[in-house]
Amino acid sequence: MNQYSILQSSAPMPGPKTPKTRKGLATKAKLLEAAEAEFGERGYHDGSIVEITRRAGVGLGTFYVYFESKEAIFRALVTHMGHETRTFIARQVEDAPDRLQAERAGMRAFFHFARAHKNLYRIVMESQFVAEDSYRAYYEAFAEGYRRNLEIAADKGEIRDGDSGIRAWSLIGLSVFLGMRYAVWDESTDLEAVVDAASDLIERGLIVGR
Amino acid sequence: MNQYSILQSSAPMPGPKTPKTRKGLATKAKLLEAAEAEFGERGYHDGSIVEITRRAGVGLGTFYVYFESKEAIFRALVTHMGHETRTFIARQVEDAPDRLQAERAGMRAFFHFARAHKNLYRIVMESQFVAEDSYRAYYEAFAEGYRRNLEIAADKGEIRDGDSGIRAWSLIGLSVFLGMRYAVWDESTDLEAVVDAASDLIERGLIVGR
Repeated sequence: MNQYSILQSSAPMPGPKTPKTRKGLATKAKLLEAAEAEFGERGYHDGSIVEITRRAGVGLGTFYVYFESKEAIFRALVTHMGHETRTFIARQVEDAPDRLQAERAGMRAFFHFARAHKNLYRIVMESQFVAEDSYRAYYEAFAEGYRRNLEIAADKGEIRDGDSGIRAWSLIGLSVFLGMRYAVWDESTDLEAVVDAASDLIERGLIVGR
Repeated sequence: MNQYSILQSSAPMPGPKTPKTRKGLATKAKLLEAAEAEFGERGYHDGSIVEITRRAGVGLGTFYVYFESKEAIFRALVTHMGHETRTFIARQVEDAPDRLQAERAGMRAFFHFARAHKNLYRIVMESQFVAEDSYRAYYEAFAEGYRRNLEIAADKGEIRDGDSGIRAWSLIGLSVFLGMRYAVWDESTDLEAVVDAASDLIERGLIVGR
């Protein structure tokens, strides 16, 4: 992972329910995966802890070893998905030779991640209604890492100077909407064509003859 | 309204419950305004028809003259808000001399509209869980008008050639996220600074020396 990573992944915060064994970590991961399917398909209100444990193949008592409530696992899931997304993107951009190549690689990685995790949008959006602080934290974590990387690239002269914070939120919004429209709603779109057109817009803008 | 409008507003579709009198139209508008406040503050599930009629100052029976259910008024509200947003933006950009100026004016208009209608994001996002077709239709209406205007501008040589559909979704995502972050979450940000930085990115991109 280098300075072109969309976001350096931060170390997970150990909490009272952080498993200490490899088996414990695996069980917690299974529960989160089951929660992704359950909340993604049925939504937060209709989703149930019993169904999550059934999908994960663990007993109900095991659930409460790791999470204290439905809201707790939902919040953990939003944090986890943000972390997974950023880590995946970071890995895909680590070999990019400069910021413009990193933008292209990061966007491509995000679109493929979104297509493979169709429940992502639904769950993140629903978090606004279940735990608004999780929703904001999800995007603020993206924006802060992105801002820092744009800042470094501008300092190195790889991109034009500009407001890195506003640019970060602009580029996140652009990727989120393109991902929703072309990677999730429409499974048949060639994602390379979307990466090319959007990268051209980001790199060279709309002005004629520039 | 000219070709620089973000979207030509389409004529409202007359339905069985379309009021025929000026008084009827005013009552329906009052109910939609009350629904915006009610669903925006309490969400769809906790929002109630009784509260909407109380906020609107009309009797319960009157509600059913215009809408057949809570879901019906929620759907109508999403359509109405999309129409209002597009009409407001269209008016603010109608005097723009070219597409780049129109982008700037349209973005400024959207940010101010979002700050004045803080419930907009919450209601539109929640529509994904109440009536997903309304949610998609909301953004597809924006994208289609936007795409058409970008196409016209490219044909006239005002902007570089490029994929108008992908550009439209990119620019919508960019504005939605900037509006959420700087117009809604943060009331004190000077929106002109956001318009300037984002317009610079859209117009000239990131490449050095272009």
